[in-house]
Amino acid sequence: MHSLNAPGLDPAVVRRALDEDIGSGDVTTLATVPAGTRIGGTILARQAGVVAGLSVVDAVVRFTALVTDGQAVTAGAELATLEGDARALLTAERTALNFLGHLSGIATLAMQCTRAVEGTGAAVVDTRKTTPGLRALEKYAVAVGGARNHRFGLSDGVLIKDNHIKAAGGIASAVAAARRNAPHLLRVEVECETTAELREALAAGVDVVLLDNMSLAELASAVRLARELAPGMLIEASGGIGTDRERLRAVAETGVDFISLGALTHSAPNFDVSLEFAELTRR
Amino acid sequence: MHSLNAPGLDPAVVRRALDEDIGSGDVTTLATVPAGTRIGGTILARQAGVVAGLSVVDAVVRFTALVTDGQAVTAGAELATLEGDARALLTAERTALNFLGHLSGIATLAMQCTRAVEGTGAAVVDTRKTTPGLRALEKYAVAVGGARNHRFGLSDGVLIKDNHIKAAGGIASAVAAARRNAPHLLRVEVECETTAELREALAAGVDVVLLDNMSLAELASAVRLARELAPGMLIEASGGIGTDRERLRAVAETGVDFISLGALTHSAPNFDVSLEFAELTRR
Amino acid sequence: MHSLNAPGLDPAVVRRALDEDIGSGDVTTLATVPAGTRIGGTILARQAGVVAGLSVVDAVVRFTALVTDGQAVTAGAELATLEGDARALLTAERTALNFLGHLSGIATLAMQCTRAVEGTGAAVVDTRKTTPGLRALEKYAVAVGGARNHRFGLSDGVLIKDNHIKAAGGIASAVAAARRNAPHLLRVEVECETTAELREALAAGVDVVLLDNMSLAELASAVRLARELAPGMLIEASGGIGTDRERLRAVAETGVDFISLGALTHSAPNFDVSLEFAELTRR
Amino acid sequence: MHSLNAPGLDPAVVRRALDEDIGSGDVTTLATVPAGTRIGGTILARQAGVVAGLSVVDAVVRFTALVTDGQAVTAGAELATLEGDARALLTAERTALNFLGHLSGIATLAMQCTRAVEGTGAAVVDTRKTTPGLRALEKYAVAVGGARNHRFGLSDGVLIKDNHIKAAGGIASAVAAARRNAPHLLRVEVECETTAELREALAAGVDVVLLDNMSLAELASAVRLARELAPGMLIEASGGIGTDRERLRAVAETGVDFISLGALTHSAPNFDVSLEFAELTRR
Amino acid sequence: MHSLNAPGLDPAVVRRALDEDIGSGDVTTLATVPAGTRIGGTILARQAGVVAGLSVVDAVVRFTALVTDGQAVTAGAELATLEGDARALLTAERTALNFLGHLSGIATLAMQCTRAVEGTGAAVVDTRKTTPGLRALEKYAVAVGGARNHRFGLSDGVLIKDNHIKAAGGIASAVAAARRNAPHLLRVEVECETTAELREALAAGVDVVLLDNMSLAELASAVRLARELAPGMLIEASGGIGTDRERLRAVAETGVDFISLGALTHSAPNFDVSLEFAELTRR
Amino acid sequence: MHSLNAPGLDPAVVRRALDEDIGSGDVTTLATVPAGTRIGGTILARQAGVVAGLSVVDAVVRFTALVTDGQAVTAGAELATLEGDARALLTAERTALNFLGHLSGIATLAMQCTRAVEGTGAAVVDTRKTTPGLRALEKYAVAVGGARNHRFGLSDGVLIKDNHIKAAGGIASAVAAARRNAPHLLRVEVECETTAELREALAAGVDVVLLDNMSLAELASAVRLARELAPGMLIEASGGIGTDRERLRAVAETGVDFISLGALTHSAPNFDVSLEFAELTRR
Repeated sequence: MHSLNAPGLDPAVVRRALDEDIGSGDVTTLATVPAGTRIGGTILARQAGVVAGLSVVDAVVRFTALVTDGQAVTAGAELATLEGDARALLTAERTALNFLGHLSGIATLAMQCTRAVEGTGAAVVDTRKTTPGLRALEKYAVAVGGARNHRFGLSDGVLIKDNHIKAAGGIASAVAAARRNAPHLLRVEVECETTAELREALAAGVDVVLLDNMSLAELASAVRLARELAPGMLIEASGGIGTDRERLRAVAETGVDFISLGALTHSAPNFDVSLEFAELTRR
Repeated sequence: MHSLNAPGLDPAVVRRALDEDIGSGDVTTLATVPAGTRIGGTILARQAGVVAGLSVVDAVVRFTALVTDGQAVTAGAELATLEGDARALLTAERTALNFLGHLSGIATLAMQCTRAVEGTGAAVVDTRKTTPGLRALEKYAVAVGGARNHRFGLSDGVLIKDNHIKAAGGIASAVAAARRNAPHLLRVEVECETTAELREALAAGVDVVLLDNMSLAELASAVRLARELAPGMLIEASGGIGTDRERLRAVAETGVDFISLGALTHSAPNFDVSLEFAELTRR
Repeated sequence: MHSLNAPGLDPAVVRRALDEDIGSGDVTTLATVPAGTRIGGTILARQAGVVAGLSVVDAVVRFTALVTDGQAVTAGAELATLEGDARALLTAERTALNFLGHLSGIATLAMQCTRAVEGTGAAVVDTRKTTPGLRALEKYAVAVGGARNHRFGLSDGVLIKDNHIKAAGGIASAVAAARRNAPHLLRVEVECETTAELREALAAGVDVVLLDNMSLAELASAVRLARELAPGMLIEASGGIGTDRERLRAVAETGVDFISLGALTHSAPNFDVSLEFAELTRR
Repeated sequence: MHSLNAPGLDPAVVRRALDEDIGSGDVTTLATVPAGTRIGGTILARQAGVVAGLSVVDAVVRFTALVTDGQAVTAGAELATLEGDARALLTAERTALNFLGHLSGIATLAMQCTRAVEGTGAAVVDTRKTTPGLRALEKYAVAVGGARNHRFGLSDGVLIKDNHIKAAGGIASAVAAARRNAPHLLRVEVECETTAELREALAAGVDVVLLDNMSLAELASAVRLARELAPGMLIEASGGIGTDRERLRAVAETGVDFISLGALTHSAPNFDVSLEFAELTRR
Repeated sequence: MHSLNAPGLDPAVVRRALDEDIGSGDVTTLATVPAGTRIGGTILARQAGVVAGLSVVDAVVRFTALVTDGQAVTAGAELATLEGDARALLTAERTALNFLGHLSGIATLAMQCTRAVEGTGAAVVDTRKTTPGLRALEKYAVAVGGARNHRFGLSDGVLIKDNHIKAAGGIASAVAAARRNAPHLLRVEVECETTAELREALAAGVDVVLLDNMSLAELASAVRLARELAPGMLIEASGGIGTDRERLRAVAETGVDFISLGALTHSAPNFDVSLEFAELTRR
Repeated sequence: MHSLNAPGLDPAVVRRALDEDIGSGDVTTLATVPAGTRIGGTILARQAGVVAGLSVVDAVVRFTALVTDGQAVTAGAELATLEGDARALLTAERTALNFLGHLSGIATLAMQCTRAVEGTGAAVVDTRKTTPGLRALEKYAVAVGGARNHRFGLSDGVLIKDNHIKAAGGIASAVAAARRNAPHLLRVEVECETTAELREALAAGVDVVLLDNMSLAELASAVRLARELAPGMLIEASGGIGTDRERLRAVAETGVDFISLGALTHSAPNFDVSLEFAELTRR
């Protein structure tokens, strides 16, 4: 279930992660740590970046957050303190850190890419190229990192690609079919790889165009054309852009509104985080 | 459910991935592609590497594999052909590619790291630092890439870390507790950060030692000590080793049996793969 | 899971319906019908209307459809024939008919309301006032009956109501927040109860206005104002309109684009349908 | 799971209803309502009737009930007050009202039909013609409205219909099979469409007869026959009776013990209810 | 889900049993048996008894049954042959045998107890004292063994015990409440420990009495009293009767209709069954 | 989900057990016990033995334990007191007692078998012959009773049986394959039925041998051979040993380390336990 006010947090996702780690039981902890032992600890950032996923950690083990999701931290920063039953904490430790490292890695990359285009008017957005089963959390991490979310999935936006166009018999008829059949609160976006396709899309009156796999020069020229023919339309660039900061800025400077990046979610390196235990007392 | 003979493949994982992408329906496809349209396509590798996850793709859409999991491919290689209902294929495309790109990315990195230590007698192994919800598939991808799997989770091995030692009152009593309480088919491994700890672990008669966060020189010296005092024991190196090929080889050459790498699963970049559609016919 | 190409059909919904009816077993059938008995039957419409839900029935018991979803039928029409294991068919009969009667009732009402506004340029659309647990199927029945679907839920459209406006500090800032934070493929609609609110919404540049609870005269005047100030904007009427055919037509004739009706899904009377068994043979 | 003492309330039903409405998130609320905003409101009846489902609403959002389930209210009555996190309340509002409107609609119709037969000795009972997935709640609403529940499903009663009779080789052998095979705490009821069938059922010693699709005259004559031949037997009338109050009373006056009505659950119009928000404060 | 025509068989129960055994994978089989190996085998009874659960085995691994559920077999009898993928069969073997041994153990005990009372007019019935999670299958095994099923759970029968009586204010008012509130297809049974209680129950007109924890002499006298005062009433004996054959027959000879035995399901010893593999071929 | 620190306790197992008993509702209690009634009671042991499962009972109904799991009790001992809502307690009573009786039966048998081998150096261990769906709880009861747990399932240990040997082409190659492919924290055990097989296993350097279905004399001779050739190796006896105390001791005295007994979990008789209610008050 989607929690009513913690975006992206589905308790079942957390439970499944614990289940796959615990299996039939944490044999080491049950064998060596007496029931009733208490322990305290601190979660530390081992690199600089943006933290995301503290509420997920909270669903695994109760703790006191020292920072908030979206906050930039330096290497060595203390993120949270924990105190509780030693068996439970030792058993849950890895799962909690796996979430935190994965999501903070995405938030950190989102922040870096967003900074690269700062001041240009373009926004960095994510895609549907997410890790299976973690879309809600990954999109949350993207937003927390300062980038924007594209559609969540196939049901909250119309994005017409070449096969839809072929099946519908052309851009004009594809767009007409979308207007006729899709709910009226969804905008219609068409993927264009050439100027010819862009002209067709503009003629069909689409709301957004996706300029796919274009060179910087092609992009710049396409943007000029679109701005001239359809002043209010939204323009998105996509396709093999990557997370190189200079390239990102160059793309942004062509005048597009959005740059969508699969790498934000499918190739963000893990954020290095650890849990240092301190006290150990018997109840 | 674990499939009876496809390691790592749990149909529920695939179904949840489709669900999170489809949401309340693929509005674009339903609006623009007439029911009954048929389509064919080819899955292509866009980079060199090792393929993993074809059986997962098969659980999403039926297809004909042209390679097998674990096979090394070059950029441009055709991995599979598909033919079927256009609506179903267009709707499932992204989910299938997300699995294939993620798992092939891991298999490719596992292959590269394994090659780096070839001939040294050391094996590269994974860790529990996996993406939440995907452990079985990621461990499968590691094995397909030629590296080895460490324990799957907390229930299939005893790995005693410093907090377990503190709670049990020392290495000797922690190992004794594990021998007394854990099932007798599980080996006992102890994490050691110093030579002193290593000597204690050897004296306690452990089956495996984990040398954590040691310099190359420390590692080499620890291995010599262990080989002298406990000839048949298994030795694992771990802790911030990373995937740099030269560093990996140097670690392997200290004489350890296993090098465990969190990066294999938590930081493998996505493998670039695409689905090119070809024919489009009306039923 | 959402089936890849049967809109609205989630096998789990069907399974739960069977489960709640069967409980611990169909004691009557198991006690009185010998295993191996075969039976044949026909599903009959007992009233005129539009059929919806045949694919759901197919998920309960295998059958041969004689009509298709969306087809108008007369009282007495044969909808499908069945043949199979008598125990299975007798056990599943009520569940199958409950789905078919409920969904065909909605499709029939959708058809009647759609006919009432035929030729006016206005379309009848559904709302989120659906029966809990059956939204996908009910929205499918609405579409099959010829009416249109509004957003499926809270994630595929921005619809700003008075409390959102209060919380955001006015229509202008609410719309600005939506533009800034919501995915760019979602249109922004604002609910207006007065001309003043309508003017504010128009000034804020919304994509769609929802004219709520207005009299026919107010509606007509609001439509005129909107068409003058924002020629391309979409206009939706809502609020206590009901399914009276004459009233519906009068609302449509004010020039709105959409009329949304909760009654389509929350108050459609059941469509009368029965299953007549014919042959009965021993295997 | 069935709650241990709230009849009909399965938290999973509520969670699924919230899930299908929220989808990937309430974009409007998240975009326009700042985190930490508090809000208060009142649930109002917009028509007279019987309230049912307050405990379901309570499972969606915490509130203070001003009436109890089963209580008759007038139009305008305040049913409950709420106070809480504005984001959570706005997101859950529609789901809560959908349950309350649906169940109160059924309770209201059950009350009306029960009143129609008051003083006759006959009771109005529901059937298995319920909305798929909501049987427990709908049967609860029927009881709350003052009518009685027939069997919940196929496992808590033996009801022999014509196909069971054909398969078993006659009424006598069907009844004998039921006595032999069904648990001994279940009564045996036989559906009869003619006097001949009724005589057979009486001869077989059934506990209850269901007089199906009979005219008022046929019913009256069948009741007389049954009372004469089997004084203590229970008699139920069924089949196309509908919810017309006068017809109901006429059926009741034939002397039957029970009148079963599919319309109670499959065609009850929605009860009109709304949630008016009042205060809005920042935390 | 309850299968539509295999009583007691819920595929989820089988899947969970496989899951708990397989965990993260059958490491022995995956490590030692090459993919593609084929194997054949035979399931053998290692003791005499009644077989139950073959359809459950069939849900685990496909096989050819040589006997049917409910058939009496001798030690050494061949129950089924299997042929298939060696990995799948070796992995599923223990789960299949666990079901078969457990259910056949119950069926065998049910057969023995039923034979002990043969010819007396009394029937042996089960209780709700079943193994958690397996009630449907265990009740199925009881029936297959020739004994009868009592109510499946709390919803398919009214059984008034002493605490219900205390809460309702006496037997008469408890019975009256049950008649007023419970569905009319459920019989009402009252538990009686003394003659005084029995007289009260008879006076209240119950359908069935449960004579609990009485000596043989008390039972015989209670039966005489009940037969005299309420000729058609059903009488059940219960409470610490056990599965001793002579005691069972003595209880039956007091003239009761039913003897309910918790031991049928909670203490039946496992039926000894094994799977002998024969051929082993490479695909 | 596995609870983080209550071994074996999965709330879903408890919920399913309640569900299968409650079905569509506890009609007796709802009909006869007024809402708001309070009740108190005591859980009593009706035989001597070892208690197991109190934490499971606690998951069903809140109570105050008077003993702890693993404690030996005499007949008549008070195990726990309860106080709460009468409807909830009466509805949950049977499910709670079913768990407690089943698990305490296993713990009691485990204690008895363990005592039989006291002082011999051998330990009694369980097997994978558990009741489907209850493995975690049953293994917990075994441990609480003082016996040891063998592997939990197929993933936490390598146990090579004759079919694995055939498929791998001999004991030597099977062991080599296991060493190469299985995770390095798992020991390798080989099942041996003859001295020849034992010699092969010893030569292959296995960690544990399982001596299966041997006579006492064969066992004693095999143990001598193994102790001579492989001093540190673990030896397990298995196969038709049963729970006869004298036979168990004789097996233990052959010098084996472990005796594994399927009967511990698949044939333990139920432990007799009851719940006596005392007070009954109206709220």
